Amino acid sequence: MPKKKKNNQVFDSVNPSYKQKRGQLRSAEEYVSGIRSGDRTILSMAITIIESSKDTHQQLAREIIRQCLPFSGNSVRIGITGVPGVGKSSFIEAIGRQLIEDGRKLAVLTIDPSSTLSKGSILGDKTRMPLLSTNENAFIRPSPTSGSLGGVARKTRETIILCEAAGFDTIFIETVGVGQSETSVKSMVDLFLLLMLAGAGDELQGIKRGIMEMADILAINKADGENIQSAKQAKLEYENGLSLLPPAPSGRRASVHICSALEGSGISEIRDEINNFIDETKESNYFHTNRENQAVYWLHQTVEEQLKQQFHNNPAVKKVFKLKEKEVKKGLISPFAAAQELLKLAQQDSAINGDTHT
Amino acid sequence: MPKKKKNNQVFDSVNPSYKQKRGQLRSAEEYVSGIRSGDRTILSMAITIIESSKDTHQQLAREIIRQCLPFSGNSVRIGITGVPGVGKSSFIEAIGRQLIEDGRKLAVLTIDPSSTLSKGSILGDKTRMPLLSTNENAFIRPSPTSGSLGGVARKTRETIILCEAAGFDTIFIETVGVGQSETSVKSMVDLFLLLMLAGAGDELQGIKRGIMEMADILAINKADGENIQSAKQAKLEYENGLSLLPPAPSGRRASVHICSALEGSGISEIRDEINNFIDETKESNYFHTNRENQAVYWLHQTVEEQLKQQFHNNPAVKKVFKLKEKEVKKGLISPFAAAQELLKLAQQDSAINGDTHT
Repeated sequence: MPKKKKNNQVFDSVNPSYKQKRGQLRSAEEYVSGIRSGDRTILSMAITIIESSKDTHQQLAREIIRQCLPFSGNSVRIGITGVPGVGKSSFIEAIGRQLIEDGRKLAVLTIDPSSTLSKGSILGDKTRMPLLSTNENAFIRPSPTSGSLGGVARKTRETIILCEAAGFDTIFIETVGVGQSETSVKSMVDLFLLLMLAGAGDELQGIKRGIMEMADILAINKADGENIQSAKQAKLEYENGLSLLPPAPSGRRASVHICSALEGSGISEIRDEINNFIDETKESNYFHTNRENQAVYWLHQTVEEQLKQQFHNNPAVKKVFKLKEKEVKKGLISPFAAAQELLKLAQQDSAINGDTHT
Repeated sequence: MPKKKKNNQVFDSVNPSYKQKRGQLRSAEEYVSGIRSGDRTILSMAITIIESSKDTHQQLAREIIRQCLPFSGNSVRIGITGVPGVGKSSFIEAIGRQLIEDGRKLAVLTIDPSSTLSKGSILGDKTRMPLLSTNENAFIRPSPTSGSLGGVARKTRETIILCEAAGFDTIFIETVGVGQSETSVKSMVDLFLLLMLAGAGDELQGIKRGIMEMADILAINKADGENIQSAKQAKLEYENGLSLLPPAPSGRRASVHICSALEGSGISEIRDEINNFIDETKESNYFHTNRENQAVYWLHQTVEEQLKQQFHNNPAVKKVFKLKEKEVKKGLISPFAAAQELLKLAQQDSAINGDTHT
């Protein structure tokens, strides 16, 4: 009987041409040296290890990140969001090409909470950015396909470190404009760019409140053909609207631009504005303090995420949480009394079992 | 030697005329029956018990809340915010008097995170609302003067339950517009009213981004004398600006009003708008589902708050947390690695000591 072929799914999903037998993990040093030398296949494999929930992978991932950390940070991190249909892929292709022509190396990471349900495919991402995906100075990586939003965001932030260590000096974090992931992305980027469409009516429905106020740059896309006039009008309206908002922590007012990713118009102005933004915030030191604050934010965020996870994985809590939630909803018990009960259950359970249900 | 006078601070701080000896707590039933009969002194005492951090008080508080819960909920809860100088006190006085003339009973609760530092005084609150503070259909209660913002907000939410059980059918939650407490308040009210000044320039500096998008009603105050024209102009600008924002979850566009609390003009229009808002959201059922969601939110919020508190009270964590935070800030360690280390420390410590450092 022939030996059953092993399932190398972890690596196969990264790069089918780079088969390895299960258990043939390399040492952290090998991954790091591959990453540092710009080996994209090794980079992909290391990211897959970061995304894995296996214990051995997680240990290895921590070591890889630790060794990459000193070589990270030297990039511009840009969040890009907008509702489906706004033309995100073609915008990223258009501006990405310009940045590469400027001599930059671009990594495009995607956070898509819906892909954790539908299992987004790498192929899909490569197809929608055909130019960048074949460019040797671009690296496209789709959203991890499992885990909570918090977990996915954490992994994306770790992936940034690896990409930077691999020499990518411009990182795009692309989100799907459903309003869940934007806050996470905002907390890991230097600049947040919101893509919009002209005609501030129905199209806006998809954008959650609060996202407009997070934007450092607004770009009204599809300003071509018959749309040009309405795009120009929308630009004025947004400029007026934004002037009513308090200034951003960066100290800079959000600027509004019109562009057509299709025709390539307006793209270089937006690239210039990005460069200006980075230059000015570096000069004012906001760039630096923002990154420091983000790092501390992620420390707190990770602790809270894990504490919550431990709590909700506690069998005693699991058993009654939904019930308590229902009672609270119906007003049969106050939220605080219910919380007390649940916390007590969790404590008793972990005191008995002496473990923490991670 | 004369017996040393005991310090009855808990009760004295509520109402100096209502002295009790220490330990003379009443039974939960007595407090609840006092509250239900509308006895404001008993209500004040019960709120002080809620605000106390003593174990015996907390137990008693939970029982009082439990017994009041079935009589709560039958009110309109309104959040009112705005930067210092916008005229919050006089606005609350003006609209409060109208509501009382309409036959309503009004409780005004204040959340002021700064008072947890400066120990806000009841006298101060009474002085700044002289009319309401002497009206038998109004009840004014300042912010608790100790605890984290989360703790203060939780206590305010519990205080709402008691006020409702005491027959107050309109609850104002007033915040100081510094941007920390607004989110908490938003999550405990049916309607959020933002007070502004004309001239959307410097005055806006004090309002944190995101707060404008939380508002259900915007009122431009001090529209009197020479300010009337600029207030009217500001109204138009805000209306235009708000029309660019996505609609609120209530389904209703925020409305903009001008008023002068000083002259009493525009106040009754705002009262009408509040009534319309409540009627419409009750009809659409948003009022009800919003309250349900808020209750569930507070369940989760309280659990998270307590878990964090346990973690940060852990002696092993306490010892190194600031250090790790500094290392993360400097980029010497990744936020995730630091979080792992700290969580491990907390687990080891609680495994050894078998307790949870609440």
